Amino acid sequence: MDSQVLAYLEENQDQFVEDLKTYLRFPSVSANSEHIPDMKQCAEFVRNQLVEAGVETTIVETPGHPIVYGRWDKAEGAPTVMVYGHYDVQPPDPLDQWVTPPFEPDVRNGQIYARGATDDKGQSLTHIIGVAAWLKTVGTLPVNVIFVIEGEEEVGSNNLDHFLESHKTELACDIAVISDTSQYAPGIPAITYGLRGIMACEITVEGPSQDLHSGVFGGSIANPVNALAGMIGKLHNAEGRVQIPGFYDDIIPLTEEECKQFADLPFDEAAFMKEVGVSTGWGEAGFSTTERRWARPTCDVNGFFGGYQGEGPKTIIPASATAKITCRLVPGQDHVQLTAALNKFFKENLPAGLRMTFTDYHGCPGLVFNTDSPYMTSAQKAIEAAFGTAPVMIREGGSIPVGGTFKEILGIDTLFLGWGLNTDNLHSPNEHFSLDSFQKGIAASAHLWGELAKIHSS
Amino acid sequence: MDSQVLAYLEENQDQFVEDLKTYLRFPSVSANSEHIPDMKQCAEFVRNQLVEAGVETTIVETPGHPIVYGRWDKAEGAPTVMVYGHYDVQPPDPLDQWVTPPFEPDVRNGQIYARGATDDKGQSLTHIIGVAAWLKTVGTLPVNVIFVIEGEEEVGSNNLDHFLESHKTELACDIAVISDTSQYAPGIPAITYGLRGIMACEITVEGPSQDLHSGVFGGSIANPVNALAGMIGKLHNAEGRVQIPGFYDDIIPLTEEECKQFADLPFDEAAFMKEVGVSTGWGEAGFSTTERRWARPTCDVNGFFGGYQGEGPKTIIPASATAKITCRLVPGQDHVQLTAALNKFFKENLPAGLRMTFTDYHGCPGLVFNTDSPYMTSAQKAIEAAFGTAPVMIREGGSIPVGGTFKEILGIDTLFLGWGLNTDNLHSPNEHFSLDSFQKGIAASAHLWGELAKIHSS
Repeated sequence: MDSQVLAYLEENQDQFVEDLKTYLRFPSVSANSEHIPDMKQCAEFVRNQLVEAGVETTIVETPGHPIVYGRWDKAEGAPTVMVYGHYDVQPPDPLDQWVTPPFEPDVRNGQIYARGATDDKGQSLTHIIGVAAWLKTVGTLPVNVIFVIEGEEEVGSNNLDHFLESHKTELACDIAVISDTSQYAPGIPAITYGLRGIMACEITVEGPSQDLHSGVFGGSIANPVNALAGMIGKLHNAEGRVQIPGFYDDIIPLTEEECKQFADLPFDEAAFMKEVGVSTGWGEAGFSTTERRWARPTCDVNGFFGGYQGEGPKTIIPASATAKITCRLVPGQDHVQLTAALNKFFKENLPAGLRMTFTDYHGCPGLVFNTDSPYMTSAQKAIEAAFGTAPVMIREGGSIPVGGTFKEILGIDTLFLGWGLNTDNLHSPNEHFSLDSFQKGIAASAHLWGELAKIHSS
Repeated sequence: MDSQVLAYLEENQDQFVEDLKTYLRFPSVSANSEHIPDMKQCAEFVRNQLVEAGVETTIVETPGHPIVYGRWDKAEGAPTVMVYGHYDVQPPDPLDQWVTPPFEPDVRNGQIYARGATDDKGQSLTHIIGVAAWLKTVGTLPVNVIFVIEGEEEVGSNNLDHFLESHKTELACDIAVISDTSQYAPGIPAITYGLRGIMACEITVEGPSQDLHSGVFGGSIANPVNALAGMIGKLHNAEGRVQIPGFYDDIIPLTEEECKQFADLPFDEAAFMKEVGVSTGWGEAGFSTTERRWARPTCDVNGFFGGYQGEGPKTIIPASATAKITCRLVPGQDHVQLTAALNKFFKENLPAGLRMTFTDYHGCPGLVFNTDSPYMTSAQKAIEAAFGTAPVMIREGGSIPVGGTFKEILGIDTLFLGWGLNTDNLHSPNEHFSLDSFQKGIAASAHLWGELAKIHSS
C-alpha cells in the first residue's frame, strides 16, 4: 500500500479517536421517537465525514430514519464495493448500570466506553476513515465505493429493502463489506463466512372464557398452560433434535474441512459454560458446542406466560397461555416453509376443546459464502497486513438479515469483517470498543481497497 | 318439630333478613389490614347474635383475626354438634363491576346482593337463627351445640388449628356441620359427602446467569423455558393420566353405586362446556365429566412465566422459568408423599446443566364420608322437611381443608350442607344469595337439631 496512506493512518490516530467520540455523543436511539432530532443530526455528521473524505453523499429520507448514501465511482474498470453500516444504536437502559454516561464517551484501559462504540459506530467509521486515507493522500481510490449507512438496523431495517429495490441499478456492485460482527477472540481476527437465519412466531392457546376455579372445573377441560407446555415439550426429542416434520431435510451439511477448522479453533468449553452460568452444555446429539452454535438449527422459547404470576399459589385453570418462539436456521432451510410447518405442528398437537392463534413475526434465511472467492482472499490479506496475523474463518450463530437482502436484491455476497469482540457489551450497559482494534480496523480497511483493486471487475 | 319453632320461623322471616343485612354491612375483609377494626366489630356482631339466641359466647383472640366461640351444652346425653362458619369475606374488587356497592346489601328478584351473601355470612347465619328458634320458643335445644365462627377462612385459616388443638378437650363433639358449599342446582338441595384434597407447589428452573442472545448461544445450552415446558408436558400421557409414579396407587375408587348416582344427576354437558367457553371437554380417559370433576385427581399448571412477555419477538434464551402447579387429590392419596413424588419427577426430568428449586406450598387430603351414617340420615331428613325434596348426595371438586382438620384433630366427620349455588358469584362481583334458600336453610337447621337428637351420643 502507498506509504502516504500508511503515514496518514499513523499520524492521525488521535484525530480518528476524536471523530469517533463526536460520533458517539449523538444519542441516536432509533427505537425512541424523542430522539428523531438526534437521529437527523447524527446522519448529518456521517454525511459530513463522508463529504470531508471526498465521497459525494446525500441523505435519503425514508418514512422512518434517513439513510446516508455516498458514492465515489471514478476507478473505471475496478470492482465496486458497497460498505454497509448503521448509525443508530440500542437504547442505553438500564442507565444506572453505566460507569460513565452512555453518550459521553470515556477512554479507560485502552477501551472507549459509550453506546454504539462497537455496534456499529466504531466499526463502521473505520471504513469512512479507510477511504479518507486514500483520497486525502493519493487523491484517488483503487476501487469504486458505495456507502449505505442506515438508521434503522436496531429496529428491523424497515425501510432499507425499499431503498435497495428502488436504487437497484445505481447500487449495482461486486461485493458488500460489513463490519458489524466480532473477532473470534482478542488478537484473533476473523472473517464470518456463515450466519444463521431465523424464524419468529408467537402462539396463543385459549381455553375457558375466563380463569376458572381449579377445584370446580379441574379435570374436565384442557388447561391451556399444560397444553401449550406439552406442545413445546414435543418440539425436541431426547437427543435434542427438533421434531417439526422436515426440519432437517434441506440443510447443507458442514464439510469435513469446516468441522476440522472449527475443532482447531482455541475454545475452552468449561470456561465458556462457567461464563454463561451453567454446569454443562446441552444440545443436539452428535455435534460439538461450536457446531451447535454456528451451524445447527435451534428452536428456543424466548418467553412464555399464562395464568397467575403473583406470590404464592392460586388455584385457577388459566384462560390462555402464550409462547414466543424463535428458530435459528442454517443454510438450506427455508424459513417460510418451516414457519408453516411449525404452525401445523402446533395445530396437530392442540388438545380437544382449545383454540390457537399463530402470529408469524419475521424470518430470514441462513447464509454461507464461498471462502475461496477472490474477495475473501483480498479480505484475508488486508486483515493480515493490519493485525499482523491471518484471520480465522468462522461462522456466527446470530442472524444479519441484510446479508440475505444484499444477496436477494443485488445478487452479491458480503464480507463480514469484525473488529469488535463478543464481550464488548453490545446491547448492554458499558458497551466498549478497543482503540487498538479501532486503529487496526482502519488500517485493514485501507489495505482492503488496495487488495480488492487486484480483482478484475466482474 | 315443635310447632312453636315452626311458627317462630314463619313469623320472623323479615327480621332474619334484617339481621343478615346488618351482618353483610361489615366490610370484614380478612386479607386487608385496614379492615382490622371492621373485623373486630363483625366478630362482636356474631357474638351478640349468639348471646341473644341464648348461647354462651366469647371472642377468642388469635395472632390474626379473632374466633367467635359459643357453646350451649345443657342437653345431657344428647349428641354434641359443632357448627363451623366464617365471618370474613373475600376482597370485593373489582368494585366497578358491582351493580350495588358490596357492603350495602340490596334485594333484587328475591336475591340479596352483597359480598359474603353466600360465602359465608348468609349460609352460616342460618344455624345461629336455627338455634335461636328453639331457645326462644321451646327454651331448650335437643342437642348440644358448639359454634366456631372464624375470621381467617379466606386467608388460609392460619390460627384455627392452634385453637382446635389447644381447646381439644372442651371441643369434643360427635359431628360438625358446615354450610359453605352449594345445592346441586336450583331446587335440588345437596349434601356434599366428598371433597377433593390438594397439593400446591412452585417450581423454578434456572439456567444461564442472565438472559442470553439466542443467536450467539442458542443450541449449546438447555433453555429453562423449553425445559420446564417439556417437564410439564410429561406430567400427562395421551390418555390424560398423570405420570407421577404412584399417583393413582392408593386411590379409593368410586363405588358402582356412586357412579350410578352421579350419572343419574341432571347434567347438560353441552351447556356446561358452552358456559365454560370451550368446544368440548378433555380429561382422564374412562371417566365421565362429573367423575373427573369430583372424584378423579388432576395436575394443573395455575401459572407459568419465563423470559420476554412484551410486544413482538425478542431473541433471548431466558435465564429462568417458573410454574405454579396444584394437584387436586381424591380420598386415599397422600398429599405429603405425592408432593415428594412430584418434586422427584421434576428433578429426574431436569435437562443437564440446569438448576431447580421446588417450593411446597401446602396441601390437604381428600375427604369422603359414609353416606349411611345416622348423621347423614338426620341431615337428609332435615333438608327434605325444609326444602320439600330429599337432597342429592354429591361430591365437590374443590377442597375445604377444615373438614380434614376436624377429622384429624377432633376425630369427627362433617356434614357439608349447602344452601347456596355455585352460580352465586362467590369471590366475584355481585355475589348474591337466594332469600328463599336462606329461609329454607334456617328451617333445615332448626329441623336438624331435632333429627340429630334421635341419635344416641357416642
